[in-house]
Amino acid sequence: MESLYVIKIGGNIVDNPALLTTCLQSFAKVKGQAILVHGGGKMATSMAESMGIQQTMIDGRRLTDEETLKIVTMVYAGYINKNIVAQLHALGVNAIGLSGVDGNLIRAHKRMHESIDYGFVGDIDEVNTNLLLQLFSTNTKLVVAPITHDGKGQVLNTNADTVAQSLATALASSYKVHLIYGFEKEGILKNVNDNGSVIAHLNRPLYATLKEQKMIFDGMIPKIDNAYAALNNGVQSVIIGKAEKMIELMNGTSGTTITN
Amino acid sequence: MESLYVIKIGGNIVDNPALLTTCLQSFAKVKGQAILVHGGGKMATSMAESMGIQQTMIDGRRLTDEETLKIVTMVYAGYINKNIVAQLHALGVNAIGLSGVDGNLIRAHKRMHESIDYGFVGDIDEVNTNLLLQLFSTNTKLVVAPITHDGKGQVLNTNADTVAQSLATALASSYKVHLIYGFEKEGILKNVNDNGSVIAHLNRPLYATLKEQKMIFDGMIPKIDNAYAALNNGVQSVIIGKAEKMIELMNGTSGTTITN
Repeated sequence: MESLYVIKIGGNIVDNPALLTTCLQSFAKVKGQAILVHGGGKMATSMAESMGIQQTMIDGRRLTDEETLKIVTMVYAGYINKNIVAQLHALGVNAIGLSGVDGNLIRAHKRMHESIDYGFVGDIDEVNTNLLLQLFSTNTKLVVAPITHDGKGQVLNTNADTVAQSLATALASSYKVHLIYGFEKEGILKNVNDNGSVIAHLNRPLYATLKEQKMIFDGMIPKIDNAYAALNNGVQSVIIGKAEKMIELMNGTSGTTITN
Repeated sequence: MESLYVIKIGGNIVDNPALLTTCLQSFAKVKGQAILVHGGGKMATSMAESMGIQQTMIDGRRLTDEETLKIVTMVYAGYINKNIVAQLHALGVNAIGLSGVDGNLIRAHKRMHESIDYGFVGDIDEVNTNLLLQLFSTNTKLVVAPITHDGKGQVLNTNADTVAQSLATALASSYKVHLIYGFEKEGILKNVNDNGSVIAHLNRPLYATLKEQKMIFDGMIPKIDNAYAALNNGVQSVIIGKAEKMIELMNGTSGTTITN
């Protein structure tokens, strides 16, 4: 089977034009099929602030009321997505920017929670794998914004790590899929303040131990849970590390490799 | 040759959810291939206002400074485009939303003008017809936002009437293309204040006369010039009329048919 990379870059990368360019230059070097999933960064928050719309975060996830949904749809699927695609074309890469709405790429449902109203947050039901395969057959790289829909006309906001995991999983029976989470740190760290304390390999027993010891906490937990969801569903490898070292992450010479 | 409709809906339609829904219901009934091109409406202007960014219009065209470009990219390619696509899926239509950036669909250059700096306004150089044909082969309707790029990483703002005309023209050798401009009026009017004064057929001599008599003026002129550009380049028919009468416009029983 051919290899395919699903690469997620976090909001901190998107916020920093120099870092973003470095990442896109690396992405441009990926041979064969690839999907770049991008988060949103601070732009949505600062736009909401300048428009007087208050933002609430719970566990690192934004509560998405109607006004916030408008803003994240605009910023993620509009500004960020189209600027990344324009930059990739300038680097000679044929790329198409999509959201989960387009071609029914990612159908989701509004999250229901007994005590917290997350608003217009979408939990993924289904990925349109055929669309991905059709687009790959035209030799196009894809740039995906984490905006989904419920198939009934409602746009939804979905966590970008989860979008990346779902796309990777959906393609696992057609490609040897490598899922890469690029963010601002060198990898999963033993000591969150020491970038030198990267755990090169994280397996399930070690993960359980480090979680118990509260050495892995907060937003790192859903990210690693996404990694295991991918591995459990046929994805070949998951690597978490510094986004601007994308080539090294792909080679497995940097970051944390997650294994079962 | 198969028929294909390129339908442009103006900002006044996009601004009015009920009207927009009516238009999308009609669009959903189009058999065969179709492209919907949408303008921006007042949302970009009101967002810019709420963010304290001043807007300047010349001849009905927005001057696009850097901040305005951000906003139109967000609103057109993000919010409006994705909401239209989500609504179409709810109507059972498989649609993909694209901007001119995606897959290099529309390459443009920054407008150069000796006396006016239009800012980041793009004049179209080339349409990627192959991409359109590939996407049609997957039986997908397209929703296009009038955001283009220069191939060097710069996103640009292009007039939606011109985008519709360019897409129609690009497809004229592959399809029997019908270009429809849907807006808030019944068609081209003899008397701008009388919706009953529709000119059913406008040919070049009549156009010249009405222009001379200042009965056709302002934003109508570039629209009709776009219509003639399309007819000169192999497009089968161009009809201008009330957007919510889209079916009648397609049948030729409403609006103004432009002929040579």
